[in-house]
Amino acid sequence: MADDPRSATARAHSNIAFVKYWGNRDYRLRLPVSSSISMNLADLHTTTTVAWDDNQEQDTLTINGATAADSALERVRNHLDVLRARFQSRRHARVCSTNNFPMGTGIASSASAFAALTMAASAALGLKLSERELSILARMGSGSAARSIPSGYVEWHAGDSHETSFAETFAPSEHWKLIDVIAIVSRAHKRTSSSAGHETAGTSVLQPARISSAAERLRAMKSAIMRRDFEQFADVVEEDSNLMHAVMMTSDPPLLYWEPLSFAIMKAVRHWRTVENLQVCYTLDAGPNVHCICAANDAEAVVARLRTLSSELDILRSSVGCGAYILTPEG
Amino acid sequence: MADDPRSATARAHSNIAFVKYWGNRDYRLRLPVSSSISMNLADLHTTTTVAWDDNQEQDTLTINGATAADSALERVRNHLDVLRARFQSRRHARVCSTNNFPMGTGIASSASAFAALTMAASAALGLKLSERELSILARMGSGSAARSIPSGYVEWHAGDSHETSFAETFAPSEHWKLIDVIAIVSRAHKRTSSSAGHETAGTSVLQPARISSAAERLRAMKSAIMRRDFEQFADVVEEDSNLMHAVMMTSDPPLLYWEPLSFAIMKAVRHWRTVENLQVCYTLDAGPNVHCICAANDAEAVVARLRTLSSELDILRSSVGCGAYILTPEG
Repeated sequence: MADDPRSATARAHSNIAFVKYWGNRDYRLRLPVSSSISMNLADLHTTTTVAWDDNQEQDTLTINGATAADSALERVRNHLDVLRARFQSRRHARVCSTNNFPMGTGIASSASAFAALTMAASAALGLKLSERELSILARMGSGSAARSIPSGYVEWHAGDSHETSFAETFAPSEHWKLIDVIAIVSRAHKRTSSSAGHETAGTSVLQPARISSAAERLRAMKSAIMRRDFEQFADVVEEDSNLMHAVMMTSDPPLLYWEPLSFAIMKAVRHWRTVENLQVCYTLDAGPNVHCICAANDAEAVVARLRTLSSELDILRSSVGCGAYILTPEG
Repeated sequence: MADDPRSATARAHSNIAFVKYWGNRDYRLRLPVSSSISMNLADLHTTTTVAWDDNQEQDTLTINGATAADSALERVRNHLDVLRARFQSRRHARVCSTNNFPMGTGIASSASAFAALTMAASAALGLKLSERELSILARMGSGSAARSIPSGYVEWHAGDSHETSFAETFAPSEHWKLIDVIAIVSRAHKRTSSSAGHETAGTSVLQPARISSAAERLRAMKSAIMRRDFEQFADVVEEDSNLMHAVMMTSDPPLLYWEPLSFAIMKAVRHWRTVENLQVCYTLDAGPNVHCICAANDAEAVVARLRTLSSELDILRSSVGCGAYILTPEG
């Protein structure tokens, strides 16, 4: 039955980084310059079915029902090459992927996409890989995908080799019921992808200082999360986001991912926390959307205040998510 | 006639820095962490009359016709103490100062104010100080005032002592007819004064990298100005502004001087230059107003485009200015 398709469906969640990943020490292996910390987002996920088929001449990809034939397909093929090498397989695959959230807006669709792809592709062949190996393999597709394999609050250890650069849970999703209220400032596809942006990080004179100070922020962040200390958490989250955007805007060419409304929300969030005592802080990835990380009790108030800033704002919200998992093993 | 008032009136221009001053190595002496480069602004000036009077029991100050009795008076008194010590005088002074531009909005009113005060105060005593000494003394009132003493395009040498930290002209105002088109995003008094802000600069992990890379920007900036190379000039002006604001927003507490509209103008200016080929670049001091530095030929187009961004925007414009000078010596 070697020419029967072997398929599986997996789901992985997006994640939002509190200590960011920006810049690699090895671009081929996607070994980051520093470790990062994130939480998975339960309500933003990618569901991917991989069918390995002896009769297929090449890999195919559909995203949200539409056939992909561009850079997305090429990136998936490259990742399938990585997986074929690891699985010692020559089969091609049909990949069908659906996101329940908008792509390319700085909400890490590549993180959930490559985590789900990696898990489905291995499960379809009946392989039982460790979480660590899945994280390592997912990393090769998209760095932040390494963090969407484990559950809850996650640290991606930068490592110093392919085998030592992986993510693992340091607190389960139930540990602290934070909510990510995401203000969708723009649904437009970003002009500079994260992958291309990473390669410019080294051109900023500020990047070495960001890297050399990361260990202290990682320590403070883990401590704040373990103690559920929102005040310290907020200080480090916002500082780290500002540091990454400081590097971006002083790179060559400068990357100004924020929009004016992003900046208005950042200032408002700071005001809501420091003056109005809401437990909320902001963080932005490589895009204009603002992730407002809140204590569960304050999420409604944050949503209401965001609506007063701009009546047209789309708002997503998510609780803390589990790791990637198999929906339908049929391999 | 020792008890007759001795008075003089001086005028000094504001200046806009292209390589910024942010942070001191010595706060008492206002010795900066790095050298800076600016141009004087012909159309934004402070006119100050100082009358030294034996019969006066204390210093008095009016600004734009109103008696000052707050921190502004205290700061002027402190500076008059510095000048009295230098002039070996015990007289008190009546100081009347007028600005032709709004104060406390990130347009450096303290620069022109302390340059004019220093020049008027010394002239009123009939002293003929060198430009270098006037720059050194003005620096004690407000760091950037050192740059409003000499004419045209100016470099403030950081120096390593009181005597070696002064500004001087490196190109006359006629050398390059740049225009500063200033978008007044807010006339509100800024919450954190520049002086207070300077003291937080060292709390950002990015400040050392900004300082250690300043020499290269100073070299590139002087070279660009001497060759009238707008492209190189624009790259360094915007990078240096972004670097200073990167330090500000990663300081403890973070200083977010920009407003959403500031950011909109920054992005628009970059678009006008890189896509529409206007010779314009942006720089922001410790405030939300955006200085759009343009080639003279493009100033009208920049003003017109700014008006399309926001119909309510107040816009100032200025050509390159001369140094501080005496209007009426009566001493």
